[in-house]
Parts: sequence; C-alpha cells; structure tokens
Amino acid sequence: MKGLLALLLLLPASAWAAGSGVVGENLLWLALILLAARLFAPLAQRLGFPAVLGELLLGVALGNLSLFGIAYFDTIAKDPIIAFIAELGVIVLLLQIGLETRLADLMRVGGRAAGVAAIGIAAPFALGALVVGPLLLPGQSQNAYLFLGATLAATSVGITGRVFRDLGKLGSTEARIVLGAAVIDDVLGLVILAVVSGIVQAGSISLAATLWIIAEAALFLGGSIWIGRLIAPHSSRWLARLDAGPSMLFAQVLATGLFLAWLAHLIGLAPIIGAFAAGLLFEPVFLKHFETPRIVQEAAPLLPAGEAGQSLRTLLERHAFHQHESMIEPIGYFFVPVFFVLTGMQVDLKTLADPSLLAIALGITVAAVVGKLVAGFAAGRGVSPWIVGWGMVPRGEVGLIFAVAGRQLGVLGEAMFSVVVIMVILTTLLTPPVLTALLRRR
Amino acid sequence: MKGLLALLLLLPASAWAAGSGVVGENLLWLALILLAARLFAPLAQRLGFPAVLGELLLGVALGNLSLFGIAYFDTIAKDPIIAFIAELGVIVLLLQIGLETRLADLMRVGGRAAGVAAIGIAAPFALGALVVGPLLLPGQSQNAYLFLGATLAATSVGITGRVFRDLGKLGSTEARIVLGAAVIDDVLGLVILAVVSGIVQAGSISLAATLWIIAEAALFLGGSIWIGRLIAPHSSRWLARLDAGPSMLFAQVLATGLFLAWLAHLIGLAPIIGAFAAGLLFEPVFLKHFETPRIVQEAAPLLPAGEAGQSLRTLLERHAFHQHESMIEPIGYFFVPVFFVLTGMQVDLKTLADPSLLAIALGITVAAVVGKLVAGFAAGRGVSPWIVGWGMVPRGEVGLIFAVAGRQLGVLGEAMFSVVVIMVILTTLLTPPVLTALLRRR
Repeated sequence: MKGLLALLLLLPASAWAAGSGVVGENLLWLALILLAARLFAPLAQRLGFPAVLGELLLGVALGNLSLFGIAYFDTIAKDPIIAFIAELGVIVLLLQIGLETRLADLMRVGGRAAGVAAIGIAAPFALGALVVGPLLLPGQSQNAYLFLGATLAATSVGITGRVFRDLGKLGSTEARIVLGAAVIDDVLGLVILAVVSGIVQAGSISLAATLWIIAEAALFLGGSIWIGRLIAPHSSRWLARLDAGPSMLFAQVLATGLFLAWLAHLIGLAPIIGAFAAGLLFEPVFLKHFETPRIVQEAAPLLPAGEAGQSLRTLLERHAFHQHESMIEPIGYFFVPVFFVLTGMQVDLKTLADPSLLAIALGITVAAVVGKLVAGFAAGRGVSPWIVGWGMVPRGEVGLIFAVAGRQLGVLGEAMFSVVVIMVILTTLLTPPVLTALLRRR
Repeated sequence: MKGLLALLLLLPASAWAAGSGVVGENLLWLALILLAARLFAPLAQRLGFPAVLGELLLGVALGNLSLFGIAYFDTIAKDPIIAFIAELGVIVLLLQIGLETRLADLMRVGGRAAGVAAIGIAAPFALGALVVGPLLLPGQSQNAYLFLGATLAATSVGITGRVFRDLGKLGSTEARIVLGAAVIDDVLGLVILAVVSGIVQAGSISLAATLWIIAEAALFLGGSIWIGRLIAPHSSRWLARLDAGPSMLFAQVLATGLFLAWLAHLIGLAPIIGAFAAGLLFEPVFLKHFETPRIVQEAAPLLPAGEAGQSLRTLLERHAFHQHESMIEPIGYFFVPVFFVLTGMQVDLKTLADPSLLAIALGITVAAVVGKLVAGFAAGRGVSPWIVGWGMVPRGEVGLIFAVAGRQLGVLGEAMFSVVVIMVILTTLLTPPVLTALLRRR
C-alpha cells in the first residue's frame, strides 16, 4: 500500500518524486530489464553472440538514448536501489560460479593461476606505465602513467565467468585457471590501487601498509574458506534436522554468499570475492543430510524393477540433487542481467566521437589485450593460452572504478579519462564474442 | 569491485557511510533475514504457530532492541533499499497468490466477496467513528473520529494470504472470498482515505472527484485483466517460439507482475493489487506452447509400458508444468520474509507501556475485530463466517499507513496515534494463530 493515494495527497510533490515515485519507476525498470534480457539472449545466440553481449549492448543502447534527446534512463542508471540490485546480481553470479567449481580442482591449478595472475598484472602495468602511456600520451605526469598502468592491470571476472558459464565450460582447466587468476588479480589489483593512490596522495606509501593490505586479503580468503569448510558439513546436518526441504539448503547457501560478500566488503575487498569463496564451501556431499526430494519419493513405488528402474531413479536424483543450485538460478535470471545492463549503461558513446582520441585509445587497447595475452602463455602446457589470455582481457566495471578513482584524484585529465573508458569499453565488448569463438572451435 | 579500498581512500568518510557502507550492511542484513526466517519457520510450526508469525515476531524483537540500548537495527529499518526489497517481497507474494488462484473461481464468488468487502468497510468504520471513538476517546475532533473509522476499515491481504498459502488452503472458497473482498477493500480503502483526507484538508470533497477515484481503480482492474487475458495466450506462444525453456515463461510472468504493480502504483493504487491481477492472467493451459521440460524428455525412453509408465509420466509432467510457479518460489523465499520482518519492526513496543492507553486500545481492537467478523457473515451459506471474518481482521502495513497519514495531517494526536498503532499490532499478530487454528479444525 506504499503507493496509496495517501502519499500523493500528504507528501510534498518533491518528496513523492524522490521517494515513492522512484520505487514505482524501479518496478517498471526491473520488468523491462528482466524481459529484454530474456528476449535478447536467444536473439544474440541465434546470431552467434553470447547472451551477455546482448545484455551489455542493450545497456549501451539505453544508456546513450540521451544522444537522441531521450533522457528517461539517465536518472535510473544513477538510482542507488538499481545499483544495489545490480551488485546483488554479480554477487549471485559469482556464488553460482563458485558452486559449480570444486575447490580441489581450483587448488590443482593454483600455481598456474598465480603465474597467470602475476604476469597478467605485471605485463599490462609495465606496458601502460612505461611504453604506450609515454609514447601515445606524451607530456603527462608520472602519476598519470602509473594510474594508466593500474587500470590496464585490472580484470573483470564477471564478464569472463559469465561467458564460460553460458557455454557450459566452467569445468574446463582454462576456466579454472582464469577464475583462480582473477581472484588473485582482484587482490593484487586492490594492492596496486592502494599503493598508486598512496603515492599520488602522499608521495609514497610504507611497505608495512602495503604488506598489511596483502595479509588482510590473504587472511580473509584463506580463513573464510578454511573455517567455512570446517563448519559447512555440520551446519548442513543441523539445518537438515530442523527442516530437510531444499529451501533450507538454498537459504543456507544464499545467506552464506551474502554474509561473505559483506565480510569481504568490510575489509575492503570486492564483495564478489566473498560470494565466490562462499560458493566454494558447499559440495554436493553435504546434500546427503537433506531429504530425498518429493518427486523421487512419489516416483519410487512406480519405478519398474531392473536396469530401467535404476536409470530412472538416477535421473531423478541427479535432477533433484542439484535443486539448491537450480533454486538459485531464478534469482540469477532476475538479478544478473541488471548488472550487465547497468555496466553497459556506463559506456558513454560520446567518448568515441573524437578521431584522434579514438586512435590513441585503440593503441592503448592493443596494449591492454597484448598484456593479458602474454599472461595466457604462463598457464603452462595442455591448455589454450589464447582462451586463458582472452579470459583475462575484459576490464569491465573494475576498470571503470579505477578510471573514476584516477579522475577524482585529479591524476587523469578529461582526455586521458576518455581514452581509458574507451579501452574499458572495447576490452569488455570484444571478449565475449572472441572467447565464444575460441571455446566453440575447440 | 564497488567496495574496493579505492572508495575508502577517495570518498569523504560521511559519503562512504551513507553510500557504499550501507550497501555492505544491507548484504549482511539480507543474509540475516533470509536465514533467520528459514530457521524461525520450522520452529514456529513445531510450536503450532504459522511461519509468518515467526517472521513478524522476529521483526518486533529486532525493531525494539533499542529498548536495550542496541540501536544497530534502527537505521536499517529506515533504509530505502531494504524498503524497496520488502516491497518487492509483498509484490512477489501477491503474484504467487494470483498464480495459484483461478480467475473463474474468483468470479464465481464475486458477489459474495463484494458483500463481505462492503460490510467489512462499513461496519468497522461506523463502529470506530460513531461508537468506540466518541465513547473511549471523548473530546476529540470529528475529523479524528473519521480517521479512526478509516483506519479500522483497512485490510492487509498480505498477512491473510500468506496464512492461507502456508496451510495450502488458497483453493478453499473462504480464501477466494477473502482475496476478492480484500482487493475490493483496497480500492474502497483508497476511496475512503482520499475522501477523509479531502474533508480534513479542504472541509469537503466533490462527488466528481470521489467518483473519478472509483472509476480509475475499477478501470485499471477490469482493463488490465481483460486486456491481459487477451494478450497472454498469444504472447506465451510468441515467446515459446523464441525460447521454449521454462526461464522464458518465468521471465514473462515476473515481468508482467512488476509491470502491473508499477501501473497500479502509477494511478495511485497499491502495487500489490497490480501484482495480484498479473497472477490471475496466467493459466496452466498457456504452458502447452513451452517445451516438455528436459527431465520428461530424458525419462521418456526409460519409462515402462502400461499403467505404471503412464503414472510416472503424469507425475513428471505435473512436477514440470508448475515449473514457472516453482521458479518464482525461490524469489519469494528470498524477498517475502523481508516484508514481514520489516512490518514487525514498525511495531513500537513503547506504545504498550501506558496502561490506560492500552486499555483504550484493547477496546478499539475489540471493535476492529467485531466489525470484520460481522462482515464474515455476509459470505453466505456453505462457508465458515469465522474464517472469512478473521481473514479480514489484520490491518498490517495498510493500517499503519493510514495512521501515519492521520498524524501527518495533524488529525491524530500522539495518544490517538499510539492507540491506533496498538490496534494494528494486535489485529496483525492475533490473526495468524487464530486463522491457523480455525483452518486446522475444519
């Protein structure tokens, strides 16, 4: 009853527009994103593009309608409620990716992932700060080149994880290496940004402060997974005793994801890292405490004897034992597109209008791609270096946050900011089709 | 990466606390509500209480921790993002209730529902404005009594619908009558509030304005259901042609719910009325355009011949054909408790501290219950008047909105506001256990 005429009658018009009115608009907005994303996904796939590119391009289109005088979507893109729902979306996505990833598989590629992450940070950073920055954008401050390097070092695991997931390739060694590297990258990116910001603001940063940031992040990741794996089997058993339905397990998994996302945020890490860690905690074996779902029970007396009956039972159980994952699926359908459409909306096409800037940006983009592709060759034998390398290419919302930070610090001027934004756009939009083509060719 | 240290370093502390910090807290908050609600539900049910009472009481406890010096939850209760998610929760709940209600069944009890609604508004209004108001709270203005009557006339369909749904009784004639009456009530309540507010503010309200409010509401309900029923079979066919998976149907249903909620809000109706109307649009028969779900396909070659095979197929299909409803279920698990916990948090236990006020409030509450029970006897033969009557009793968040409106207009003083709030608390908390007992006894 929030929208009751009462509010119309009682509140001043401005308050109504700012509060309840926006709540109303947000409902329309969510409906549009939800339906448009489900319509675009099959259309994009028929054209051979991954679904996520459809969502990103939808966002680009909506975000730039103001070029044609339609400013309706501009306010919604800045709405804090929609921003929170987008954040929930990417948290749910990384939780799903974590659930579909076995911790043991990830550990097995740990060394290779660390190598990819280290080179995937060092190579683009060096290329940006020492080579293409001074070469293509001469006359800027040393700090500006440092920041450019930091932006080139970023990785957006959301885009890549989504492409691997859409194509059902999360189980591949490449996907594991990229996911592991992206998590390490996120931690290292945090360190780089803190260090670069410290140098820009205070002229220097102490080694102790740097080490503390690294230690805190490592402690969180290691600690939450270690403690979580100790607790998860027992909590699953206790909760199953209270209510053995699949909804209890679903609530446990989702609440853990939200809790670790909050904890990661609290210590200054990205919430999605916490959500991914939460996904790694739960293994299908914990499910044994939860009751056989109703469909298996109801079907049991009807099953024929012999092999066909056994196969039917296996089919039903397999279907049912992924119920907690499939219960999170609808939450994903609802929220994940909001994140990608909103990421697309942050793309300002006006930055592409200046030809000389565009040329410089293309040069920077080549460096951004080359730097990450080099990292792909650190993945070692038996995997495609191109898939790993391209998996690290998209800068997505992470790159945009770096760019905005640089502008707020006064390090990146308008021109350099635009160049960085174009690089982020191109790496983000290029990756899904390229990665899809590479994965399909294998 | 929103929570990156960058924001910590760059933004002033106050901005951080207001923006990103709250986003982080909201993650923790959602995790707590989600898990607590799933833990309380089985505990409450073991004690014989409905799950919704557990959620309401959890909210009352959290909302009044400040009595013990713990003010942590006070800010969260006022957070606009949490308020929006609660609103989404009750929208999803009414969409689910609409999906589980057949329009034809609702039409069949239309006359009886209208009778219950009319008496359910008139009796409590007259009791409040003419009898218990002047009797228990002498010396107030005529307008104050008018407002008291209006508050007593309100109905919160969320609480009742939830109880019927939790007990699997949405298919009963009583549930249909209560749902129909509650929808009509919501429209009439809107009219009453507009009229009373108009009288308070301007001294009078024109008949034309009153009729326009009624016409608009009737036009929305009739129009959206009529047009929706014309479109829904065709849109289902078109969408199934594009992508015949269950997620497309889920997106169509949820997006329609959000869209009609927005439309209802736009014309000044409660969003939940739009969501309920959206649920009425979709009938299982539209599902025939969507593909046989994968589990049925995979099981088909394994099914034995004869009757057992046919029973198994029917079981699988029944399970699968409710897939769009069961896909909305997890969204409900996530959001619906937020609404009820937040409703509970609006209860201020301090209002119960004054014995004389409490006595007056108890008298008003008796009038509030009696007024709605009288309406139950308008439901006609073959149904339990007590179940219908108690179904109309809870005032919930609707009553609170009326009370807040009265206070903002300067009509309800502090004492009278407290009395109304206590009445709302008691009717809201009493209904779930009473209704559960009545439904179980049948």
